[in-house]
Amino acid sequence: MTSAKIRTAKREDAATILRLIRELAEFENLLDQVRAREADILRDGFGPTPRFECLLAELDGRAAGFALYFHNYSTFEGRAGLYLEDIYISPKARGAGLGQAMMARLAAIAVERNCARLDLWVLHWNPARAFYGKLGFGHMEDWLPYRLEGAGLRKLAGADKG
Amino acid sequence: MTSAKIRTAKREDAATILRLIRELAEFENLLDQVRAREADILRDGFGPTPRFECLLAELDGRAAGFALYFHNYSTFEGRAGLYLEDIYISPKARGAGLGQAMMARLAAIAVERNCARLDLWVLHWNPARAFYGKLGFGHMEDWLPYRLEGAGLRKLAGADKG
Repeated sequence: MTSAKIRTAKREDAATILRLIRELAEFENLLDQVRAREADILRDGFGPTPRFECLLAELDGRAAGFALYFHNYSTFEGRAGLYLEDIYISPKARGAGLGQAMMARLAAIAVERNCARLDLWVLHWNPARAFYGKLGFGHMEDWLPYRLEGAGLRKLAGADKG
Repeated sequence: MTSAKIRTAKREDAATILRLIRELAEFENLLDQVRAREADILRDGFGPTPRFECLLAELDGRAAGFALYFHNYSTFEGRAGLYLEDIYISPKARGAGLGQAMMARLAAIAVERNCARLDLWVLHWNPARAFYGKLGFGHMEDWLPYRLEGAGLRKLAGADKG
């Protein structure tokens, strides 16, 4: 019988988190976009100004998945929410309920912290959409995600009058 | 000649921020969804655990708009970004460049903090989409926003094995 466990990631897990980030990016056909290094994970997850929190899923004591999240904010609710940046289970570890267990843990964290919501973005072709649907997530069809980055971001920054 | 100014919001601006949030919600036909109170804005914007930051746009010394944002995180970039939760200019104050000036200030903050991105969600029918496009934002067409909240969130939280 396998033993599954969800736990909070620690400093010592930074290399494991980066490995799983890279596995996820490969699954999304976006590995060429990964610029993160272990030092980034250490600084932003476990330094004096944390930018994210992370859960690890373990199967028989080995890391088999992760969920990386941070607080967002709803001005309508007047309270924070959780935003799930990444959730990933290694292919070999699928079917053991780790994804569902991590999602339940995230929901419990959200409720415990009086968060209004658990939000995420998902790629339109990702089969995980069915999984999210089963868990009760709704597709916010009225809302479209927009992004400014790279040269466009620097150009607009240059227009600031200070 | 009118004088336009963008400045960082302070504690004393909490009531003004809430008024502008409610104006924005009215514009989005979502006023019935606003549960935020001034105490929420004070706690989450100006208390010991800030959950957001806010810019105010002033025209001739009067608050005429706001931009409310917080840090998100990109695991691929290995660094934080900015997420713009709300940007709003009162109808009477439009055409004076306040929206563009707030966006330029946000971009400058992002660049100064080494943020990779400035992200937002926009309602599909909102004319601001053209404004964002002109500023260089791209619609992330491959990505869909999903949300779990209310009873669904509490139910999933109840499935957590602790």
